[in-house]
Amino acid sequence: MKFLNEAWYVAAWSEELGSGTLLARTLLDQPIVLFRDSSGSPAALIDRCPHRFAPLSRGRLQGDSIECGYHGLCFDRAGACTRNPYASTVPPRARVRSFPVLERDGIVWIWMGEASTADAGLAPSLPTLVDPAWHAIRGYLRTPANYVLAIDNLMDLTHPEYLHDRSLGSPALKTAHYEVKVESERVIHSNRWFDSGPIPPLMERNFPTNGQPVEHWVNMRWEAGSSLWLEVGATLAGRPRKEGWKTFAAHLLTPETATSSHYFYAAVFDREEARAHVNDDEIRAILAHIFAGEDSPMLEAVQGRMGGADLWALKPVSLPGDEGAVQVRRALAELIARESQPGTPERSA
Amino acid sequence: MKFLNEAWYVAAWSEELGSGTLLARTLLDQPIVLFRDSSGSPAALIDRCPHRFAPLSRGRLQGDSIECGYHGLCFDRAGACTRNPYASTVPPRARVRSFPVLERDGIVWIWMGEASTADAGLAPSLPTLVDPAWHAIRGYLRTPANYVLAIDNLMDLTHPEYLHDRSLGSPALKTAHYEVKVESERVIHSNRWFDSGPIPPLMERNFPTNGQPVEHWVNMRWEAGSSLWLEVGATLAGRPRKEGWKTFAAHLLTPETATSSHYFYAAVFDREEARAHVNDDEIRAILAHIFAGEDSPMLEAVQGRMGGADLWALKPVSLPGDEGAVQVRRALAELIARESQPGTPERSA
Amino acid sequence: MKFLNEAWYVAAWSEELGSGTLLARTLLDQPIVLFRDSSGSPAALIDRCPHRFAPLSRGRLQGDSIECGYHGLCFDRAGACTRNPYASTVPPRARVRSFPVLERDGIVWIWMGEASTADAGLAPSLPTLVDPAWHAIRGYLRTPANYVLAIDNLMDLTHPEYLHDRSLGSPALKTAHYEVKVESERVIHSNRWFDSGPIPPLMERNFPTNGQPVEHWVNMRWEAGSSLWLEVGATLAGRPRKEGWKTFAAHLLTPETATSSHYFYAAVFDREEARAHVNDDEIRAILAHIFAGEDSPMLEAVQGRMGGADLWALKPVSLPGDEGAVQVRRALAELIARESQPGTPERSA
Repeated sequence: MKFLNEAWYVAAWSEELGSGTLLARTLLDQPIVLFRDSSGSPAALIDRCPHRFAPLSRGRLQGDSIECGYHGLCFDRAGACTRNPYASTVPPRARVRSFPVLERDGIVWIWMGEASTADAGLAPSLPTLVDPAWHAIRGYLRTPANYVLAIDNLMDLTHPEYLHDRSLGSPALKTAHYEVKVESERVIHSNRWFDSGPIPPLMERNFPTNGQPVEHWVNMRWEAGSSLWLEVGATLAGRPRKEGWKTFAAHLLTPETATSSHYFYAAVFDREEARAHVNDDEIRAILAHIFAGEDSPMLEAVQGRMGGADLWALKPVSLPGDEGAVQVRRALAELIARESQPGTPERSA
Repeated sequence: MKFLNEAWYVAAWSEELGSGTLLARTLLDQPIVLFRDSSGSPAALIDRCPHRFAPLSRGRLQGDSIECGYHGLCFDRAGACTRNPYASTVPPRARVRSFPVLERDGIVWIWMGEASTADAGLAPSLPTLVDPAWHAIRGYLRTPANYVLAIDNLMDLTHPEYLHDRSLGSPALKTAHYEVKVESERVIHSNRWFDSGPIPPLMERNFPTNGQPVEHWVNMRWEAGSSLWLEVGATLAGRPRKEGWKTFAAHLLTPETATSSHYFYAAVFDREEARAHVNDDEIRAILAHIFAGEDSPMLEAVQGRMGGADLWALKPVSLPGDEGAVQVRRALAELIARESQPGTPERSA
Repeated sequence: MKFLNEAWYVAAWSEELGSGTLLARTLLDQPIVLFRDSSGSPAALIDRCPHRFAPLSRGRLQGDSIECGYHGLCFDRAGACTRNPYASTVPPRARVRSFPVLERDGIVWIWMGEASTADAGLAPSLPTLVDPAWHAIRGYLRTPANYVLAIDNLMDLTHPEYLHDRSLGSPALKTAHYEVKVESERVIHSNRWFDSGPIPPLMERNFPTNGQPVEHWVNMRWEAGSSLWLEVGATLAGRPRKEGWKTFAAHLLTPETATSSHYFYAAVFDREEARAHVNDDEIRAILAHIFAGEDSPMLEAVQGRMGGADLWALKPVSLPGDEGAVQVRRALAELIARESQPGTPERSA
């Protein structure tokens, strides 16, 4: 399938890429090897030696270069061959493609388009993940479903009522206010809220209501390629939102293949609240239950039932809650179509 | 592959479909969900919500409807949308295909053709399975082979001598009388018998002969789509068949995919004999050995060796015992060819 | 893929084919059943009955014939039907293809081309494997990679420095002398040696040097289809090779499919040395580590990275050490191309 290449995707959480590590990961159907050079700066190369096509990730780090584990050619972060054990010169075509990377907010981002088109200004900014006022619990899950099915799931704020009915659902939410805002061709918001109703059961502990009705909001923000940021909050009905409680979640998807995705997620709590109430292991268990036990099997089943067809070719019935996901699908289709036209690289303003 | 759609197939044994159960099964390459409405009447729908293609079998039964487990649309036994949680009206195209079903003889039958062509008169009648004078031991096995290979196996009454040589074979049977009778375009008989010979070892207990020769018969009846009914009997040589002993077996095949089948089977004994001699668990163990341990691996191996080719394209060598299977293959090909011509739906007389 | 059919391949080690054994093996994408007739002579047939395509290897040996386990047709070593249980004559087309085989040096060789083209003079001769002066430790490994990738690996004598660096590598070897000799269109040598340097660590025990430098050689000989014979030796620098020490290894590859191979291997030691120093179990463990733990996973990974493409289509970077493998690839391509032209069967001189 065609992916949006000219975008920043999460290649790894920073902590996954230790010094000396060669991390092999398929991203957008391409085999990639990630590593840090001797200064600690992350780098990404095609994970395939140009000599006899051994995965470079089966080699070893020698200073700032990867030494191929089959015949010993060495390649640096730019993909240049830095050593040929069999001669004093390197073969002229001995180079591998390198990819722009940048590290910020505890994330190693990778640009999958041509290096010349890379625009650091397009990288999602998620400073809350490393803000000392907040406490982030991070995780990773490989999902056996196309990343757009996962975006559908996340931009749609109605499914929790059914798929996660014992945890996240609130009866009042599904007929609540709903708005979709297209902020730019690369940023779309899907917001759902109600003015007065019972707090969802999972949040009662975070924001005890003694049965009083709350205003409750669930705001999802998509940014191209496929980074989603969720704000969930509640305040006593009629009171300002800033008097209430809120939490964030990052849902960062990177396509692996046409039928599978890398899913980097984080649950983010106010630091003080986290100290008082939040048990990291318990949160991890809840997230594992929701993502691995409920969402992921549903996405895999949906993909199976679609049988490889495009969503629109199947003429789906539409519901009001689909609007956010439909807008993202439209934006992605336009960005991908534009990218295919040579000579008009995608840039930020 | 092309299946014969306009036929009744076993979707489930009645007891598999408990109240409140959503039973997912792929039949003739289509995902089907089976359930009972509040009156206990069985129903069958395509197992795919028309909204975002979640399997309906991942939802839950709400009264007479299935509620989709992803976004909550509800569908009744006719496939009509009975509830849209997000609005007071239902989307006009929100419906799923339903399939005619009928329940009889402890079997839920499904018609896989257009509902308008369904003809209850074409459903196989197997009253012995629920006749109080008889005792039926039922089972189910998924077979990793095309259903026609299983029909070949069943209509051919010679292979037991080799494949089941320690259980069902009788040396006298393979050169015995053999006749194939085409009763109609949907019913074919394959009968084998000898007038005098030793009883097969497995039957000695059911009909002790003290070494006397018996007349022994093995009669198989195929009915379209793929229901086979076997009568096996023995009587002392020269005595009328009604003085002897007999047993029945149902071999009810439903295509799952081009390369796998659902196999519903039953062994049927005279009730009095069953009380005296038959140990259900022992019979189950014998059947498991024969079907799962001998037939099924052979069918899978044959399918592998055929490499996806049609039998006739491989120009098989013919043996006299193939006649019954050849007649069924011919009948199926004709019924399927006729079905493909629009405007001439297949009907019973 | 196209294989070289007109060549002798190892079908089995002699000891794998016991009396009464039906050994099923896929060779060059064809299902083959191997057995011994009552005189102990090996035979090979297509492993598929021409009646209903059951694997003959699921049958049983009856005298000099295989009896099919499904319906009982019998076939002898020539593939002729010797018995039809259902009639006194055999169906005219009831025969299966047989393959020429010959047994020598503890190996059952098979000719995969037309029987009329079989030329015993083309079978590799490996008498050292059964020479009483030598001690051979034999093994078998199924490798999940195309056989030519394995030939690349074996003809290239530089990779041990990297892939097997803790066992076989010697720093001096990779910049050593290297010559490739094309002996004939079916025999190519790839020889590497140095005149003076430290002995590789694994060999110190076999040939203790007390730190003195050695002349060390590694000579690989390929013979079509894909039999490779390795001689590894060392002598004190400046002394004749015959004063030194040497060992042999057989690397006998038989294509299974386009993406997998049978790998028959043997390590061969001087009988006296073996008595004194060689622990068979230890050697087996070392070989298992090298082949199954280092080479095989690398070949599988390379095959994955090549994504089904031909090596040359991927425009690989060339290194000097590739010469031997490149010559074998060229020889194989020419032999295969010639074979495809009808009327010009390949013969020995």
